[in-house]
Amino acid sequence: MTTPLETALAYHRAWASGDLDRAMAYIADDIVCDAPAGRIEGAAAFRGFMAPFVGMLRGTSLLAAFGDETTALIMYDTETALVPSAPGAEHVTVAGGRITHSRFLFDRLPFERARH
Amino acid sequence: MTTPLETALAYHRAWASGDLDRAMAYIADDIVCDAPAGRIEGAAAFRGFMAPFVGMLRGTSLLAAFGDETTALIMYDTETALVPSAPGAEHVTVAGGRITHSRFLFDRLPFERARH
Repeated sequence: MTTPLETALAYHRAWASGDLDRAMAYIADDIVCDAPAGRIEGAAAFRGFMAPFVGMLRGTSLLAAFGDETTALIMYDTETALVPSAPGAEHVTVAGGRITHSRFLFDRLPFERARH
Repeated sequence: MTTPLETALAYHRAWASGDLDRAMAYIADDIVCDAPAGRIEGAAAFRGFMAPFVGMLRGTSLLAAFGDETTALIMYDTETALVPSAPGAEHVTVAGGRITHSRFLFDRLPFERARH
């Protein structure tokens, strides 16, 4: 049985390598993700949210990762085509090896500025 | 000897209650804080960064908190006069009961929008 932290890190490694298909294997069909712009419900919507980000990803480094019996909390930095340093943090709840809830935090401001 | 997590939580409780003086007791004089807008160096500059936020704080709730021998990672939600839900995450390094480094993450966009 993998731990929530192992699941969170496997998910992170998958999208960090640009493999969104593999990342989605760790996402529950009925995931609820509370992201900066609001709530995202369901794996299809979550994939739609992640795809543009993964598409512009140039690199990522894990800053910290912890977990307990049901949750994990990770923080990382990312480099994207739009923003050179865009750190993120995710607090995930895991059941049956899949992420059922994610509180997803990053600073939208540099992305907003880069687009306008 | 308090753990880094205990220090991070004591610091969090202090500013959450609006007591910035007490919060600063957990901040090293030479703190380095990597915040969304850039690096903040020294306790005086850090206090200047925190004061406007603490001044408009209406409430906060801890979402997750973990630590090890030298660091802690916490995530919380806050309600401020400007933004009803503004979550934050902090990865802190602690030495001698004081925070020497903080990687501080929150979404600046709703604050930017509320001000303009």
